[in-house]
Order: sequence, then structure tokens, then C-alpha cells
Amino acid sequence: MSDRPTAPDPDRLKDWEQRTEVPLFAAALVFLTGYTVRVLAPAGAQPWRDIALALVAATWLLFAVDYGVRLRLSGQGRHFVRAHRLDTVVLLLPLLRPLRVVKLYTAVQQRREQPRMSLYARVMTYAGITTVLLGFSAALAVYQQERGAPGSTIRTFGDAVWWACATLTTVGYGDAVPVTPGGRVVAAGLMACGLALLGAVTGSFSSWLLQVFTREDEKRPPESV
Amino acid sequence: MSDRPTAPDPDRLKDWEQRTEVPLFAAALVFLTGYTVRVLAPAGAQPWRDIALALVAATWLLFAVDYGVRLRLSGQGRHFVRAHRLDTVVLLLPLLRPLRVVKLYTAVQQRREQPRMSLYARVMTYAGITTVLLGFSAALAVYQQERGAPGSTIRTFGDAVWWACATLTTVGYGDAVPVTPGGRVVAAGLMACGLALLGAVTGSFSSWLLQVFTREDEKRPPESV
Amino acid sequence: MSDRPTAPDPDRLKDWEQRTEVPLFAAALVFLTGYTVRVLAPAGAQPWRDIALALVAATWLLFAVDYGVRLRLSGQGRHFVRAHRLDTVVLLLPLLRPLRVVKLYTAVQQRREQPRMSLYARVMTYAGITTVLLGFSAALAVYQQERGAPGSTIRTFGDAVWWACATLTTVGYGDAVPVTPGGRVVAAGLMACGLALLGAVTGSFSSWLLQVFTREDEKRPPESV
Amino acid sequence: MSDRPTAPDPDRLKDWEQRTEVPLFAAALVFLTGYTVRVLAPAGAQPWRDIALALVAATWLLFAVDYGVRLRLSGQGRHFVRAHRLDTVVLLLPLLRPLRVVKLYTAVQQRREQPRMSLYARVMTYAGITTVLLGFSAALAVYQQERGAPGSTIRTFGDAVWWACATLTTVGYGDAVPVTPGGRVVAAGLMACGLALLGAVTGSFSSWLLQVFTREDEKRPPESV
Repeated sequence: MSDRPTAPDPDRLKDWEQRTEVPLFAAALVFLTGYTVRVLAPAGAQPWRDIALALVAATWLLFAVDYGVRLRLSGQGRHFVRAHRLDTVVLLLPLLRPLRVVKLYTAVQQRREQPRMSLYARVMTYAGITTVLLGFSAALAVYQQERGAPGSTIRTFGDAVWWACATLTTVGYGDAVPVTPGGRVVAAGLMACGLALLGAVTGSFSSWLLQVFTREDEKRPPESV
Repeated sequence: MSDRPTAPDPDRLKDWEQRTEVPLFAAALVFLTGYTVRVLAPAGAQPWRDIALALVAATWLLFAVDYGVRLRLSGQGRHFVRAHRLDTVVLLLPLLRPLRVVKLYTAVQQRREQPRMSLYARVMTYAGITTVLLGFSAALAVYQQERGAPGSTIRTFGDAVWWACATLTTVGYGDAVPVTPGGRVVAAGLMACGLALLGAVTGSFSSWLLQVFTREDEKRPPESV
Repeated sequence: MSDRPTAPDPDRLKDWEQRTEVPLFAAALVFLTGYTVRVLAPAGAQPWRDIALALVAATWLLFAVDYGVRLRLSGQGRHFVRAHRLDTVVLLLPLLRPLRVVKLYTAVQQRREQPRMSLYARVMTYAGITTVLLGFSAALAVYQQERGAPGSTIRTFGDAVWWACATLTTVGYGDAVPVTPGGRVVAAGLMACGLALLGAVTGSFSSWLLQVFTREDEKRPPESV
Repeated sequence: MSDRPTAPDPDRLKDWEQRTEVPLFAAALVFLTGYTVRVLAPAGAQPWRDIALALVAATWLLFAVDYGVRLRLSGQGRHFVRAHRLDTVVLLLPLLRPLRVVKLYTAVQQRREQPRMSLYARVMTYAGITTVLLGFSAALAVYQQERGAPGSTIRTFGDAVWWACATLTTVGYGDAVPVTPGGRVVAAGLMACGLALLGAVTGSFSSWLLQVFTREDEKRPPESV
């Protein structure tokens, strides 16, 4: 907190971030929808494809503007880029944008003053939401790369979703596999994330299970120590 | 406990659940047997297939009646559905019903006043029973979807069981793979469960192993610290 | 300790077990060697194959005699079979016999009064030895089942070892896959063990790594808390 | 510390190791570059290939000399070989040499007096660097073995990198698989490392995630216990 140049107006930055939270999330959904339509619309539906492209471009511009404003408000320059590395990556790969849903979900839950889920339930919920969004985005991106490629085994969007399932769980049947360089780069990214998510789900589920059994043990009188 | 509408008669609900435990488990076994016969009986054995279908329908009706009675007795309406999400899923996918064996197994063990297994042994036992039942059910369901499909690589029930083994362990050879949309949906469900089970088995086995070695260390005098 | 029928002569059982430890391990090695020769010897080397078969039969008889003597000495009957479930499995599947090397290794190390390895090092060493032995035995058994099967992809012993590596690590390329029922049963067993070993290695390696880093942290004065 | 023959001049050994740290790392990079050029240079660029071979040989000689000097300075003989098992392996498989980057990275960070990364961040950083270097080295070695082999599915260096990704994450599609004995040995090594890294990344990521959530819980007043 003290070893970085003090921001000129941290309150205005916080204010901006709170105000733009919901609109930006809506924009992220529009972006995802636009990209989905762009990729999945049949070749004949040209007007739809054009509208989708326009939406994607417009929302991306929005994200860029938001990033610029926050960079300004923070007054940190290079430090901001380093401290918000994830935001920078998301700007360059806006398909990851809807992952902000996790942040919004937390915010909404805090406002509603709902009884909090247990630690493990939250980790599993967030990891689950992240997996579904990542898998869907990767399936879209891979499908876009692969559908026209010669020798491709991913010919329908259903194949791409099936491929994403098999990859995220590290099962990897190999019946649907990207063959283009672009598709393989997306796949490598998904694999790395799949590993990390595997770690989170694995860790929290087994910790939770052990906790459940430990608690059960404590309830019963220890007649058989 | 206090932030939900109080049930009108929690004792009657508990009573009902205790009384129906064994009959419902028997019904679940009948359901699984009926479904197994329905799927595996040769096309010629029409009467057997009809009996099996009747059994499946009758037991499913039983489950629905039980769910309705419990919903009534709880007097919680929508809250009951949310609090018993797993029961609701099991009602819609009755093939998962025999998973209740775990509950029964615990109950039986408690009645017998047997010396309790260690924490890790129980987690591993339950995860093991769940794996075998899940794998068998998934193999049945996938076999039903795939056996007639063109280009299918799962042609016998043995292939389906082999596929289930390779999927649950996330090995995923890819020599037997579902190709129909229905089969792939079942497979995606099995993969997700495979991951979760992997977490439970992995976590408890390695915890147990570390415990064993730690205990061994404590027994020996620390001559080589 | 107190809730089982007391053995008539526990000292004689212990004595027997200590005396037979080394000879039985030697017999297990002879068994493994015999089985290896039986499987890998070229079809022309009939005398060698016959000697190998005789060795396998003789050592198996030895194991059966040992099991019988221990069952007698314990005087527990059915309880002995239940308490030594692993021994019973090993009697029926003598290929798992050399796994006793782990027990012997511990015994030898204790006699030599060597400075003990750390907890994690021991878990990893034992899991490693077990993996290598299991993988080798499974490769032998699968090779025996598969080599003559039509459409088999495991045609040399090298293929079988390669298949065992890919299976134990759950990579599962699918280029070498058992196609016979016998081979698939062996493979399913190896997969289950692969999962368990994955858990042990994964758990102990990551625990060890975290310990190393934690210790390093404690050494350095906390100048940057 | 006390149960080994005392080194004649431990200070000189330490001094040597500190002085040679940076030059040896530079040599390791030269080695890796040389090997990369040797493997990837087109067949026509003979002079480049010859220069690369010379570089590889020269740097390997450097490593051998360093090992010899350290063996001398330590004055421990056989004990040195056993205590520095990893160094001995690295001498025989110099492709693993650049893994020393991890050591150097720590040293550099200590000199700069930078605020230390958290425990989990460091484990993940080191495991990440190790993975990338191991994967790249294995891809190079497998490509060298496989490119000319009949029936090979790894025909370009891109294929080799793709294969390394799928192997390290244990996904294992099986579309690119080594078929030569040499390539399979490299692959088996990479698989074992992939498992260990999976353990480290899995363990530290999930521990970190749980820590983050636990800390968050502690910050909020416990209104809903």
C-alpha cells in the first residue's frame, strides 16, 4: 500500500468501478452473444452476421475506453498495467470478459445480505461458473478456427462443445481434435486452465468431503476409539 | 435452522423417511434391474422387455409418490425443492437412485453397532460404491444410445463398461467413444462426476497414506532428528 | 485388539512371518522371473518355457503353503481371511506378490539403522517402487492376452510397456489399447491403481514442495511482511 | 552435517559455486540454443548445424569440468555423487540443464531485495518455468527422434510442441504420438514429470484459492454463523 506512488484520486477510481460494474457486465454479455451469433449464424444470414460484428466491435471499444479511464483515474501508469495484469489480458482477449460474472455474482450476493455459502461451496460454484464460460468461449473460438480446415474432426458446434468437455476434464479421447495452429493455441490455453480448475475443484471437493466426515465423527460419542 | 419456515410436522417427515428407507432402496434396485433387463435383453425376448418396462414405470411412480408425500409432510413447498435439490435431480434421473445405497449402508452399519471404519476408509468406500454404480448406470445409458448408431464404436455392453472405466479414470483412450448427442450428454455428466470422484479418492487416499507414515514416525523413538 | 478372538499362539505366527520374509520375497522374484520368461520367451525355446512354467507353479504352491500355515497359526479361521484381505488377493493374483518388496525394503532399512528418509521421500519412494512393479506386471499380463488377438495394437512387449506408462499417468493416448476381454480387465485394474498412485504421488510431492518453501520462508528474517 | 566426512574446503566450494552460477547458466542457454538450432535448422544449412554441434559439445565439456572441479573441492568422492544426484543426472542429460534457471531466478530476486512473492505464487511460478522448459526440451528431443520415422504422427516441430502440451496436462489426445523407442523413452520421462508438476500446480493453486477465501471470510464480520 505504501510502496507504490499514491493514486491522485483513489475514490474516483473506486466510484467509477462500482458504477460501471453492471453496465460492463451487460456489455460483456452483448459481446459474447455477438461473437456467438457471428460464429454460429449460417453463411446465408449475412445481415445478422454484420450486426453481430458491429456489436462485437462496439463493446470491445467500450472495454478499451473503460480500461483507459481507469488507467487515467489511477494515475499509476505502468504500475497500473502491472497491478491489473488480468485486466490487460482480458482487454486483449475479450472473450474472457464474461468471467467477470464471478465478481458480479459476489457483489450481488453481498447486497442481498444472503446467508453466505460455505467456503467450499463458493469455491466450487465459482470454479464451476468459470469452467462453463471458459469451455463455451473455447468451443466457439476453436469452432471458428476449425470448421473450414481440411482434415478437421470438429465440424459442428456440438463437436466443439464435446471437445471442450473432454479437454477440460483431461479425459482427451482424441476423436475431436484441433488441427489448425490457431485452434491448437486456443486448446493449449484451455488445457492449462483445465488443469488449474481441476486443482480447485479437486482440492475443495475433497476438503469438503473430509470436513463433512470429520464433523459427523465429532457428533457421535466416541464409543470406539 | 431458524431462518426457514418451521415444518408443520418434522417428526412425521422423519418417521416417513425412516420407514420408507428400506422399501425405497429395494425399489431402486428393482428399477436398476428393470432398466438393465430392458437395455440388455435380446430383441427376441419381448415379454421380458415388457415386464422390465412395467417394473421401471411402476418403481418410478413409487419414487414420485414418495417425493410428493415428503413435500407435503415438510410443508415447505418451494423451500423443500431447493433444500433437497439432489432428491429432485434423482427424481428426474431415476438411474441415479441406487446411489442411496450409501445412505442405507451408513444406517445399517449404525444399527449393527459395528466398530466404525476410519474417516479415510469410509470416504474411499463411499466414493468406490458411488463410482461403481455411476459407471454401471452410465454404461447402460450410453449403450442404449449408441448400439444402433452409424459409426458407433460402442457396439457391445462390454465396450460400454470399458468406455466407462477409461472415462471415470480420465484416461480416455478414445477407442470407444459416444458419437450420438444423447450418448455425449451422458458422457459429459460421467466426466464431471469422474473429476469429483477423482478428487475425493485422491484426497482421502493421499491423506490416509500421509497419516499412516506420520503415525509410524511417532511410534519410533526419534533417534535421527 | 481386544474385540477379536485371541490367537492361540501369536508369537509363533510372528516368528513364522519373520523367518519366511526373505525366502518368500526370493520366491516372489522367482515367480516374477518365471512368469516373465514364460511370456517373453520365443515360441521356439520350449524347454525354457517349460522350466518357467514349473517355477511359476512351484512358487505359487509355496505361497499357498505359507498362507495355510499362517491361517493355522493364527487360529482365527474366517477372521484371518477378513483381516488379511490383501494377502488373500495376492494369493489369487500372485503377480502382485513382488509388491511385498516394500515391506522388505522397510525391514532392511530398519536393520541397517540408516538415517530415515523424510516422510514425503518415503511415500514417494514406495509409490514409485509400487508403480514400477505394478506397471511391469500389468504390461506382462496384457501382452500375454493381446499378442495373438486379431486387431490388437499391442504387438510387442515394448508396446505393452508403453501402454502401461500412458495408462498409469492417465495420459491415455489410445495408440496401444487392449481389445480382448482379459486384457481389458487387467487394464481396468491398472487404471484404478494408477488413480490411487496419482493421489499418493500428487499429494506427497505437493505437500513436500509446500514444506520446502515454508521452511525457506522461516529461515529468512521477515523483512517484508 | 556431522555424519559425513568433513569437506577439506567447504568455503572454496561455495565460492566456486557462487562465481560459476551466472556463467554456467549462460552456458546452459547456449547449450539449449545450440541444440535447438541443431534440431530445427533445415538440412541445407550445414554450416549452422556444424556450429551448433560445436557449441553443444563445448558447453557440455564446460559442465563436465564444473562437475569435476566441484567433486574435487568437496573432497567427498562417492558421497558427493550421492548427495548431488540431481546434478549427476543433469550432467548425463544436459538438456535438463536450463532448469537451473529456477535457482538463478531466486538468487537474482534475493539480490534485488524485492518484496517476496507469496508462497503459492512462487511455487506456481517455479512449476510454470519448469514446465515450459521441460516441455520445450522434450518437444525438441522427440522431434529429433520422430521426424524421419515411418508412420510417425509428429512431422513438424509444431506437432511436437502440441504433443508436449497434451502430454504434460495428461489430456493425451493421441493424434500425435511417438512411435520410435527413443521418442517413447523421452515421452515416458515427460509423463512422469507431468504428473509431478500436476501435483505441485494442483496443490498450490487449490491451497491458494482456499487461503484467499478463508482470508475473505475473516475480514467480514461473522453475521451469519
